[in-house]
Amino acid sequence: MEITLKREALSSTLQNINAVVDKSSTKPILSNFVIRTTEGEESMVEFSSTDYELSLVEKLTAQIAEPGSICVNAKKVFDIVKELQGEDVHIRSTEQLWIHITCGSSELRLPSVEVGLYPQTILEELPQSVTISVDDLKHCIDMTLFAAITNESRRNLMGVCLCSTAGEQTRWLSTDGHRLAEIVKAVDKINIGQGQEVIIPRKALTEVRRAADLFGETVRITFDSRVMQFSGGKISFKTRLIEGKFPNCDPIIPKDNTLNVIVKRENFINSLRIVSSISTEKLRPVKLLISQGVLKLESEKADYGEVVDEIEAGYDGEAFQIGFNSKYLLDVLAVIESDEIKLECKNSMSPTIIKSTADDSFLSVIMPLRVEW
Amino acid sequence: MEITLKREALSSTLQNINAVVDKSSTKPILSNFVIRTTEGEESMVEFSSTDYELSLVEKLTAQIAEPGSICVNAKKVFDIVKELQGEDVHIRSTEQLWIHITCGSSELRLPSVEVGLYPQTILEELPQSVTISVDDLKHCIDMTLFAAITNESRRNLMGVCLCSTAGEQTRWLSTDGHRLAEIVKAVDKINIGQGQEVIIPRKALTEVRRAADLFGETVRITFDSRVMQFSGGKISFKTRLIEGKFPNCDPIIPKDNTLNVIVKRENFINSLRIVSSISTEKLRPVKLLISQGVLKLESEKADYGEVVDEIEAGYDGEAFQIGFNSKYLLDVLAVIESDEIKLECKNSMSPTIIKSTADDSFLSVIMPLRVEW
Repeated sequence: MEITLKREALSSTLQNINAVVDKSSTKPILSNFVIRTTEGEESMVEFSSTDYELSLVEKLTAQIAEPGSICVNAKKVFDIVKELQGEDVHIRSTEQLWIHITCGSSELRLPSVEVGLYPQTILEELPQSVTISVDDLKHCIDMTLFAAITNESRRNLMGVCLCSTAGEQTRWLSTDGHRLAEIVKAVDKINIGQGQEVIIPRKALTEVRRAADLFGETVRITFDSRVMQFSGGKISFKTRLIEGKFPNCDPIIPKDNTLNVIVKRENFINSLRIVSSISTEKLRPVKLLISQGVLKLESEKADYGEVVDEIEAGYDGEAFQIGFNSKYLLDVLAVIESDEIKLECKNSMSPTIIKSTADDSFLSVIMPLRVEW
Repeated sequence: MEITLKREALSSTLQNINAVVDKSSTKPILSNFVIRTTEGEESMVEFSSTDYELSLVEKLTAQIAEPGSICVNAKKVFDIVKELQGEDVHIRSTEQLWIHITCGSSELRLPSVEVGLYPQTILEELPQSVTISVDDLKHCIDMTLFAAITNESRRNLMGVCLCSTAGEQTRWLSTDGHRLAEIVKAVDKINIGQGQEVIIPRKALTEVRRAADLFGETVRITFDSRVMQFSGGKISFKTRLIEGKFPNCDPIIPKDNTLNVIVKRENFINSLRIVSSISTEKLRPVKLLISQGVLKLESEKADYGEVVDEIEAGYDGEAFQIGFNSKYLLDVLAVIESDEIKLECKNSMSPTIIKSTADDSFLSVIMPLRVEW
């Protein structure tokens, strides 16, 4: 193979490719990636990497002097290419599996691996599909991924559940058992079987979100019960889906929470940060005391001290109090974009809804915390 | 004690105070700091913290309702105060050793410690002194601290040696055994005994450097053989000096290096980063091949590949080659400010001088590396 590419484009492609590469180094072959010239498409080469779960295929314009393919260490090439200064990068492979890369006055020589040893990513035609604008996809990921579980304790919660609503919209749902986040979004085209739902793994959504602007204007998501592909522009991600059943969250979403409290989002964030900053616990419990026009926040009364703060609140019902892990509140307040947010409570023991006052498509439910101070 | 301070000034003072506080938590009392009202100075309170080695005393304007002193956890107060939003912060202590802090709608209550238990920092009159502009002090620290040792293997090298030259200038010197850095700087006033030298610890110089702009225009450095104080504006640092003898570095600084190579600093940095980026070793060895007009750089020829690069060089002598740890070269190139730098070499086995072409007050000496490729 012998090709020439623009350095800047190469460098940003390698960054995406390297993000997908397996960092655990338990399977050395997965520290590599592949460049191959493709048949039928002139002046186009294909970069691909995979960690077995998630794969990325990205196409890049190149001058092709000799078609072929190479498989070489991703981190090494990325680390060096990002330091290069010239405009064009020339890549050539030899029969002895050496890769020669030249750029400006710099020349490097790297060992490579037989391409045949590297797991190949094959993009498929898959039966179910959703076509969504890139901005909407980014929004749906941002509004749900924060509530998915991060450890391995419950594999079926380590991602976001996608299904369709009765009204032919997409429904994105995540939960870690203590909170959930749900967004319903209309899409350009939808073809999902009735009652079918899939769980998209966290890593896939993280990488899709990061590279989202490369999809162009819209993303075509296709899937079956096993795998899912995100395609648009010059890139495609393919991911295995999480096996297992996503819990039925509908019974957890309260329907009769009538105590509505409206607060300015920034003030609430600020007060939570002040009151939670004294706590040494990771989840930083906080008590909310809600009365006419006022939301008062209190930290635990601990040996190391205590903090209280208060902000204005739109509320004119009976006074009540409720406890939360402030991290859960701060996580959802960080993704809502409106100036005001609404807490829909029932009592100090029942799940509470947090949503924007401006938009009904999103809601988050947080389980309260028993506060004994 | 009852005082009111401006929040922004308080927050930046607490940042300095907290930087000095001992983070190892082996001595719990050292996680605190002290605020005290001072006699004779109205509307002024004194903040102080110490880790036994290094102390900081910073004065701040305040409205004083009731004089006194408090000793309270530094990190806790800093973490909370940086989240506060109001303009004024009111601090009041009770007889039960509780500290009440209020700001805007926020109120906090923290336990405190008997002030008498906290080691007090006493600023002294010390016999030796140097008065130096803040900019010059910053420069002297930047040009030397990078070459001081960072681990505990040789305590006498864990700082920068200060002495005076025959010409009544200050000489700042550091070495880790593989390289040294020296700067000679004229100062406003100097009073150092002939032949006297002191070793200033790394942490003191790091903190002095970070807070340097608070000194105002000039810093008065006073010391004896045991301690040193840096004073100016509203802050004073006091540090223990490192006991022990600094090695005599004069014999190591070459006097007869006649092979002079001039290169553009940025090009050299760039090439070093390209060539060293392939190495997996921490110090990243590199070989320089110098010939008429050209400096060629080569990485090791390793199983994982190799990189070469070249840049223009002002040199018209015999060709020669010399190896270095590229980290050492990059460290010194990062602090030199001129467009061009000069390498003064003798042969591939002898210490090499690196200096600016624009300024003779600074030099660094680096021991070469035996390169066998």
